[in-house]
Amino acid sequence: MHASINDPELRSFAPASAESHFPIQNLPYGVFRPKGGGEPRVGVAIGEQVLDLALLEAKRLLDVPALTGREVFNRSSLNAFMALGKDAWSQVRARISELLRDDTPMLRDNAALREKAFLKQSDVAMLPPIEIGDYTDFYSSRYHAANVGSLFRDPESALPPNWLHLPIAYHGRASSVVLSGTDIRRPLGQTMPEGAKTPVFGPSRAFDFELEMGYIVGTGNELGSAISVEQAADHVFGMVLVNDWSARDIQRWEYAPLGPFLSKNLGTSISPWVVTMEALAPFAASGCEQEPTPLPYLRSPGNPTYDVNLEVWLQPAEGEPRRISASNLRHMYWNIRQQIAHHTVGGCNLQTGDLLATGTISGPTPDSLGCLLEITRGGREPLQLGDGVARRFLDDGDRITLTGWAQGDGYRVGFGECTGRVLPAREQL
Amino acid sequence: MHASINDPELRSFAPASAESHFPIQNLPYGVFRPKGGGEPRVGVAIGEQVLDLALLEAKRLLDVPALTGREVFNRSSLNAFMALGKDAWSQVRARISELLRDDTPMLRDNAALREKAFLKQSDVAMLPPIEIGDYTDFYSSRYHAANVGSLFRDPESALPPNWLHLPIAYHGRASSVVLSGTDIRRPLGQTMPEGAKTPVFGPSRAFDFELEMGYIVGTGNELGSAISVEQAADHVFGMVLVNDWSARDIQRWEYAPLGPFLSKNLGTSISPWVVTMEALAPFAASGCEQEPTPLPYLRSPGNPTYDVNLEVWLQPAEGEPRRISASNLRHMYWNIRQQIAHHTVGGCNLQTGDLLATGTISGPTPDSLGCLLEITRGGREPLQLGDGVARRFLDDGDRITLTGWAQGDGYRVGFGECTGRVLPAREQL
Repeated sequence: MHASINDPELRSFAPASAESHFPIQNLPYGVFRPKGGGEPRVGVAIGEQVLDLALLEAKRLLDVPALTGREVFNRSSLNAFMALGKDAWSQVRARISELLRDDTPMLRDNAALREKAFLKQSDVAMLPPIEIGDYTDFYSSRYHAANVGSLFRDPESALPPNWLHLPIAYHGRASSVVLSGTDIRRPLGQTMPEGAKTPVFGPSRAFDFELEMGYIVGTGNELGSAISVEQAADHVFGMVLVNDWSARDIQRWEYAPLGPFLSKNLGTSISPWVVTMEALAPFAASGCEQEPTPLPYLRSPGNPTYDVNLEVWLQPAEGEPRRISASNLRHMYWNIRQQIAHHTVGGCNLQTGDLLATGTISGPTPDSLGCLLEITRGGREPLQLGDGVARRFLDDGDRITLTGWAQGDGYRVGFGECTGRVLPAREQL
Repeated sequence: MHASINDPELRSFAPASAESHFPIQNLPYGVFRPKGGGEPRVGVAIGEQVLDLALLEAKRLLDVPALTGREVFNRSSLNAFMALGKDAWSQVRARISELLRDDTPMLRDNAALREKAFLKQSDVAMLPPIEIGDYTDFYSSRYHAANVGSLFRDPESALPPNWLHLPIAYHGRASSVVLSGTDIRRPLGQTMPEGAKTPVFGPSRAFDFELEMGYIVGTGNELGSAISVEQAADHVFGMVLVNDWSARDIQRWEYAPLGPFLSKNLGTSISPWVVTMEALAPFAASGCEQEPTPLPYLRSPGNPTYDVNLEVWLQPAEGEPRRISASNLRHMYWNIRQQIAHHTVGGCNLQTGDLLATGTISGPTPDSLGCLLEITRGGREPLQLGDGVARRFLDDGDRITLTGWAQGDGYRVGFGECTGRVLPAREQL
C-alpha cells in the first residue's frame, strides 16, 4: 500500500464533503445495478457517486499486476475479487485512489469516460455485496454479555465462566442475511410467558435490534489448519454494519442448551458498502484490557481494534428518527484477530465470503447500549422517545437505522447506513 | 409416482443381490467422476454399478416433461435437479426405473450404450453430492438428550424444560461438511479439566462420533414465509448418513450459553448417495408417542418417520471393525416434518441444498446408543472391543463407519456407508 493512500490531505476531483462517509480515503466496495437497467457489477463509493469498476476493468484502467487478465468486477458479488488476496486488494485500492486523485488527469479530464464511469448513488440499486458462505456471530462485548446474562440468568453470575477465556460464538443462519433496506417481518414463535405452565404460540412480543459490525473473510484456510492471531488480519477484506434482529421472548425459551435458533434466523441486515481494513488502518486502536491474560493462541498485542463511532436511530411509523444509542467498536473485549484465531484453532475452515460478526457492541454507559433488551432492562423500563412515545421493544412500523464512521482530521471513513423496518407478523394459519 | 416403482417384485437387468443397498427399488443419486478422467456428473447407484445420468440426458433418454430442454445432470452437484421440485424428482425416478427394468429393452439390449452408461462403482471417485447452503443440526432423540443432559448437567433435570415442546436445533457449520472417506483431524482446543482453576489448551481428549441422518432440502421457502407440517415432506429431496464428529471436552467448556461451536465445526461427514424420500416411502413408520401434545403448528399425524436400521462400526488402526451400536431412525422423538415446520415457523428461509440433520439417534437400550459419550457414560465405563482393546473416546487411527438400510421383503433400500478415520492433532505452534 502506497503510504499516501490514506493521507488526510488527499483530495479527489469527485466531490465529497467533510461529513461524507465516502471520501477518497475510504473507497468502499459494493455491488450495484443501474436503476435504468443493466447487469449487477462492482463499484466503489466516492462522495455521492459510484465509480463503475466493471467499466474501468473492461477499459483496462485497473491493470495492476495482481489483476491482469482476470475479470473480477463484472460480477454480482465481491467474492472473486476477494479470493485474489491481500496483495490484489492493496494494488487495486492504490490504483483506484490514483485514478480519483485531483492531480491525475486520466479520468478527471476525460468527460466522456467520466460520464459513463460515475453514477449517482441515487440512480443505482444496491445489491448484496457478498455471496455469504457461513455466518458466525460472536458475543464479544463484555458489557453486553454481562447485561444479558444478568437479565436472562442471574445477576450474580452474569458473565458465564468461560467468557473471559474465549470469544464465545455461535453459527448463525447465512440464508437470512439480507441487504439494508429489506423490511423484516416480526416472527411468530413459541414462548413461555412468565408464570405460564405451558408454552404459547404467536407473534414475538419482544422484538429487538442488535447493533453489531460484521467483517468479511477475504481468504480462508483449509479444513484441519488454523489461522494464527498474527496472520488473522491478512485474511479479512473489510467490514460492514450488521443488525442482528432478535426475538427476545423466543430466545429466552429456546436457547438452552444449544443456543439461539429461531430468535435470530428471521433476518440479519447488513450495510451495502464494504469498508476495507486498509481504509480503517489509520483508526487502529487499543482494545479493552484483558484480565486474566488469554491463553497464548489468543494473545494479540499492538492496536488490534478500531475506533469506529456507531449510532442507532429509531423512527416510529409516524414521526422523526431519534438517536437511541451511541457506541464504538472499541468497546469489544475480544478483537477480530482473536475471534479468527479462536474460530480456526480447532481446524474449522473459513472461506471467501464468510461473514463474521462481533455480537452486540454495547459500551459501559446507559446511552451506549446496543439493543433494547439492555436499554429497557428487559422491557421493564420503557425507553422514552419524547412526545409521549415510548418503547419496551420494537413496534410494527418502527425503522431501525445503524450508522457508523471513523473520524479523521477533517474527513470521515464511514459505513453509510444499515436500515430496516419492522413488518407486522404474518397471519396465523 | 407410478405405483410399481417401489414394487418389491421389480427386477433390473443390472444385477443387485438381496443384500445390496442399491437395488432398482432404491435408485439413489450421487455425483461422481470416472477415475480414468472426466468431468463431475450425476449418477444413480444400481447394484455395484453407477448409471451415468449426464450421458442419458445428453442422449435424450430422460426426456420427461419436467426436464425437457434442461441440462441438470451434467453438473457437479444435485442442486439444479433438486431445484426443479417434487414433480421432476418423481418423473425422473420413474423414467430411470423404467430404463433399468428387466423388461425394458432400450438399455438392456444396447450393448454399446450400456458399455458407456454403466461404470463400476470401484472405477469412479465419489464427490460431495450437494452444494450445501446452510447446515442445521437438531437434537431430536429423547434418549440422547436425556443421556447427554444427565452427563453434562444434572440427572434430575436431564431433559431441558423446552425439550418436549419444540425440536431443539442449532445452526452448524456448512463449510466443514465433508464427504465420507475424508480423514478427520483431532482438534486442538480449550478445555477446563475437572478440578482445574484455569483452562488448558491441547488436543481434545474426548473425541467422539455422532450417529445421525441428514436430509436435503430440495425446494425452500421465501424469507418471512413458513412451511407447514403438512407441506414439509414435499420440500425434502432425500436422506444421507451423517457423522457429526464432536469433541466432548471442548463442548463441555464452550457450549453455555450460545451452544456448541468449535466442538463440532472441525468436520461433519456425509455419505455420498442421496436416497430419495420416494424410495423410503414404503418404510414409513409411526414415531414416538408425543406427550404433552405439541402446539398445533407441530402436530404431525400419520406415519411421519421411517424404519431405517442404523449401525456404527469402529475399526482400530490395528484390527478388524467391530459393530458398537445398532439403532433406528424410528427412535427420533421429533420427526422431519416437525423439524421443518419448526425451522421455518418464524420466517427463516430454507434453500435448495440445505442440510438438516436429526441429531444423534440413540435408542432406548445400551446397544443402541449413538455416540461414545453415552456408551461409556462420559468416559467412565470403557467400551470393551475384545482382545483387550477398549475405548473411552476415539483414539488416533480409529475408523468410524456408519451404515443404514430399510429392510424390504427380499431387498434393501440402503445408504451405503459413511466412513472416516481420526488423524492425530496437528502439531502445536
